[in-house]
Amino acid sequence: MRRHLLSIDDVTPDDIGEVFATAAEMHDVQRREVKKLPALRGRTVINLFFEDSTRTRSSFEIAGKWLSADTINITGKGSSTSKGESLRDTVLTIAAMGVDALVMRHHASGAAHQVSQWVDASVINAGDGTHEHPSQALLDAYTLTRRLGGLEGRHVVLVGDLTHSRVFRSNVLCLIKLGARVTVVAPPTLMPSGVGAWSRAAGFETSYDLDAVLPTADAVMMLRVQKERMSGGFFPSPREYTVGYGLTRDRLALLGQDVPILHPGPMNRGLEIAADAADAAQSVILDQVSAGVAVRMAILYHLLAGEGSAA
Amino acid sequence: MRRHLLSIDDVTPDDIGEVFATAAEMHDVQRREVKKLPALRGRTVINLFFEDSTRTRSSFEIAGKWLSADTINITGKGSSTSKGESLRDTVLTIAAMGVDALVMRHHASGAAHQVSQWVDASVINAGDGTHEHPSQALLDAYTLTRRLGGLEGRHVVLVGDLTHSRVFRSNVLCLIKLGARVTVVAPPTLMPSGVGAWSRAAGFETSYDLDAVLPTADAVMMLRVQKERMSGGFFPSPREYTVGYGLTRDRLALLGQDVPILHPGPMNRGLEIAADAADAAQSVILDQVSAGVAVRMAILYHLLAGEGSAA
Amino acid sequence: MRRHLLSIDDVTPDDIGEVFATAAEMHDVQRREVKKLPALRGRTVINLFFEDSTRTRSSFEIAGKWLSADTINITGKGSSTSKGESLRDTVLTIAAMGVDALVMRHHASGAAHQVSQWVDASVINAGDGTHEHPSQALLDAYTLTRRLGGLEGRHVVLVGDLTHSRVFRSNVLCLIKLGARVTVVAPPTLMPSGVGAWSRAAGFETSYDLDAVLPTADAVMMLRVQKERMSGGFFPSPREYTVGYGLTRDRLALLGQDVPILHPGPMNRGLEIAADAADAAQSVILDQVSAGVAVRMAILYHLLAGEGSAA
Repeated sequence: MRRHLLSIDDVTPDDIGEVFATAAEMHDVQRREVKKLPALRGRTVINLFFEDSTRTRSSFEIAGKWLSADTINITGKGSSTSKGESLRDTVLTIAAMGVDALVMRHHASGAAHQVSQWVDASVINAGDGTHEHPSQALLDAYTLTRRLGGLEGRHVVLVGDLTHSRVFRSNVLCLIKLGARVTVVAPPTLMPSGVGAWSRAAGFETSYDLDAVLPTADAVMMLRVQKERMSGGFFPSPREYTVGYGLTRDRLALLGQDVPILHPGPMNRGLEIAADAADAAQSVILDQVSAGVAVRMAILYHLLAGEGSAA
Repeated sequence: MRRHLLSIDDVTPDDIGEVFATAAEMHDVQRREVKKLPALRGRTVINLFFEDSTRTRSSFEIAGKWLSADTINITGKGSSTSKGESLRDTVLTIAAMGVDALVMRHHASGAAHQVSQWVDASVINAGDGTHEHPSQALLDAYTLTRRLGGLEGRHVVLVGDLTHSRVFRSNVLCLIKLGARVTVVAPPTLMPSGVGAWSRAAGFETSYDLDAVLPTADAVMMLRVQKERMSGGFFPSPREYTVGYGLTRDRLALLGQDVPILHPGPMNRGLEIAADAADAAQSVILDQVSAGVAVRMAILYHLLAGEGSAA
Repeated sequence: MRRHLLSIDDVTPDDIGEVFATAAEMHDVQRREVKKLPALRGRTVINLFFEDSTRTRSSFEIAGKWLSADTINITGKGSSTSKGESLRDTVLTIAAMGVDALVMRHHASGAAHQVSQWVDASVINAGDGTHEHPSQALLDAYTLTRRLGGLEGRHVVLVGDLTHSRVFRSNVLCLIKLGARVTVVAPPTLMPSGVGAWSRAAGFETSYDLDAVLPTADAVMMLRVQKERMSGGFFPSPREYTVGYGLTRDRLALLGQDVPILHPGPMNRGLEIAADAADAAQSVILDQVSAGVAVRMAILYHLLAGEGSAA
């Protein structure tokens, strides 16, 4: 693995295999009563979040602490950026303090990539605009791999608000890299422009018809409808979205009973996913959360505790 | 002690005795230069506060850190709940990360109880609506026990905005459990509905006349007037409240000089308590704060480091 | 060094020498892969910030953590002060929990001094209104000392919004104490009232003419224009400020190439400092940030790990 985790594009299948192997060990630690490894003692991890995110920030904070790193949270709100400082000066300042990793969420696509060119610290992209969220894709793929045995040739269906989803982009890249067959499903208004050319180049399929796709799915991932980002016009009403693209109780019956259901959260129950589906035995939504800590421990470990490490 | 601390109702006098014994040891640690015990190393405590509270959150955070737990703060504001996620999904997500305890404040009465039915982690109710705040009651009783030698047969007077006070409810339950005689005093408009039946069943007294009650008090606890919660009509003016129910300099003279004065804070000086009373030699208000850390260390210890503990 | 760090006035040149010697050792730690010393294990440091400050708060938090202290952040927003509690009660409460040091930023000049008279904990003034910011002055002087070899007889020029700058006050005191010759430059409207008498008593010079002063400077420190504090009338326009008092590309040419350029940040690039100057080889702006952690480690160490320390 390289020095940064900015995009799934930068990661090889071998890198992913290494992360998964380490994550499996971390998963064991997570089940212990004493969840603590000395691997990153004396390393400093900054969670720099310009957008709120309970789950991603907490997941990285727990991952850092369980590896004995010092973790520090900085939010955009109280940051110098709110006093007119440029992003470059803000991150150069934080890096100059002597930090080892910057876990960063920013509303601008490409922000993490830019930052990685300015600082010596390892940069982990924890979501940049509508672009990527690679640690989410890795934890999703890890969850699926454990459940399905492997992804080679398995059919994974992603459904929802693709236009506003960084999870979608990172997941498609990651799943294809691991040999899965991928179909993305969305209403025409939420299908990103340019998806046609991308899907042909990358080798995935698109569809507007969820009911036609579901019966062949080996796994289905429902994506959050980004209510807070959406200004009207994408679909007539929440009810209509659910009828066309929600994982309703009726559609649940179309799925095999061992087909895992994923959702990166936070869920809009009753909108993109029915409670019956979210809470079904085949739902792995909480496994994703649990895997998130293990995978992020593995990411931090591989980026920070490489050769020359004191771990 | 059970797995959770939700209500004083769930705690036996023996449980309280054990917590107090441990708290006394923790109190000694608190006076050391090196305030650190290894008891909860590798355990993770989440402070999940949907309402702001400097003192309670900091007190639990310090308690956790001194016991070597990893502590993580999550506020309602940045949380997924603000993106429309249900409370159940929020806490299931946090619990799935692998946390050992959830210290939780929520504006809805009964929230902590509900959460305890959803998660495996220990849940500590750090205030649920106007319902309970059991760790506050335990630290108050601990402070009183140390000051008075014991509570059996002692007369404790609680004064103030009882309708909006969770501290009042938890304290009455706890003090009676420890054998104290309890009188609660409030203006008629701030006396909770149903207090008559409850007081007869539980065995405490109510009064509208503070001056009549104070001379027999062995301890007096002034409760905060919840200005931020109160929409007019409960009393004509702050001045009138003070005249009827404040611990004024004149009323201070009605108290014996060794009668401890308590207040859970934050105080409205000049409203429910005069500066002379707050700063009197017999005031134990800062002892309460100090005891708060020790008692919360004891609570975390008993909930998390039980049998099978690695401590 | 005394128990508190409130003002550079309280610190002797010997104290400063000791802090610098310790800071140099800490600076070495900062360059290690494992940045961790056991010196303050079991001590508790509270960052109590009534005003936002990413860089100062993070710098103290990192400093505390690298010394193995428990560090806890409290912001004015969620604090009890926002519920009407007095500052005195807020800090007495925090201190009563058993903390060892209070790092404090407050909008009122003199606040830290007052607090130090109320609590037993060590108080570190991290900025009080327009009054002082002593740790900033120490880190600036440390940076300069390392760059220039020593400050005796060296000419340091401070430029900018002196009226609203606590950095200016602390720096002038510190630099003079270390034997530097100091000139402060500002437009007449931003030159503090009373600076004439102060400058004669303390032995520094004032000027309205930056171009006349720069050629003799051994170091130049540009101060932030406090846009958020300034209500109009101090200067006609940002452009006019830059023309008269900015460190522009033209003025950069007036400086010797080994004359260090400082700025406490956050910078308004293009206003008080041009990008060419901020990014010049002779700029030590990021060295200041790096030194900030080392100097704050030294301050915490000297205040908390004195005689009788368990370190």
